[in-house]
Amino acid sequence: MLKKIDHVGVVVHSLAEVKAMYKALFDLEPVFEEVVESQKVRVAGFSVGESNIEYLEPTADDSPIAKFLEKRGEGMHHIALSVDDVQGTLNRMKDEGVRLIDESPKIGAEGKKIAFVHPKSMNGILLELSQEA
Amino acid sequence: MLKKIDHVGVVVHSLAEVKAMYKALFDLEPVFEEVVESQKVRVAGFSVGESNIEYLEPTADDSPIAKFLEKRGEGMHHIALSVDDVQGTLNRMKDEGVRLIDESPKIGAEGKKIAFVHPKSMNGILLELSQEA
Repeated sequence: MLKKIDHVGVVVHSLAEVKAMYKALFDLEPVFEEVVESQKVRVAGFSVGESNIEYLEPTADDSPIAKFLEKRGEGMHHIALSVDDVQGTLNRMKDEGVRLIDESPKIGAEGKKIAFVHPKSMNGILLELSQEA
Repeated sequence: MLKKIDHVGVVVHSLAEVKAMYKALFDLEPVFEEVVESQKVRVAGFSVGESNIEYLEPTADDSPIAKFLEKRGEGMHHIALSVDDVQGTLNRMKDEGVRLIDESPKIGAEGKKIAFVHPKSMNGILLELSQEA
């Protein structure tokens, strides 16, 4: 049911610095880089095994990511797990009393179905559920 | 060079609650559970694809994990990445000015060679490097 860690999301001030670091330390380039306009964020993902490590940089001062940075500084933001059926997983969670952020999936990057689960119900971790398109 | 996410470490108050949640939500049992006396911590790991999600519960009030809980509450504690050569990776990092916690690997669970890198140099993430025994 939990297929893999799809990605770990990390909030940073500067993608340029992260890219320089990955190049110098691991000889790695991002496998993708894109701006998500709706979230006012630029994302760069590095492939590590079957997972990505994704770095998020705000593109505006009123980005949710900018607020996170201001409040908590750089660091881990969320974990995304691949599942076969996001809606079925959300339903099961709701039945068990888990606090959901999204009651039904929305379409994310690469056409994936995604939904977020509240960290209050997940031991402090913002959980993203992700289903291949 | 970076082979996979070996595990993500999450600090919690109660492993019993986490185990009940994984059973109810995902029908998953831990693939291992052990006490690490030197760290005064009990660890339970759940297998997700090629990675584990590991939950850490303090076994004493003076455990480093108890201090983390008191200060920051439950949540993400570290990310462990599998590499071919921990010492070589540490050397390369040191040359690049990265702040290390361990200058050479120590032996961790399952006989793996492990070393920690300071979050100040890793965008707020406590990074563990891990090499198969």
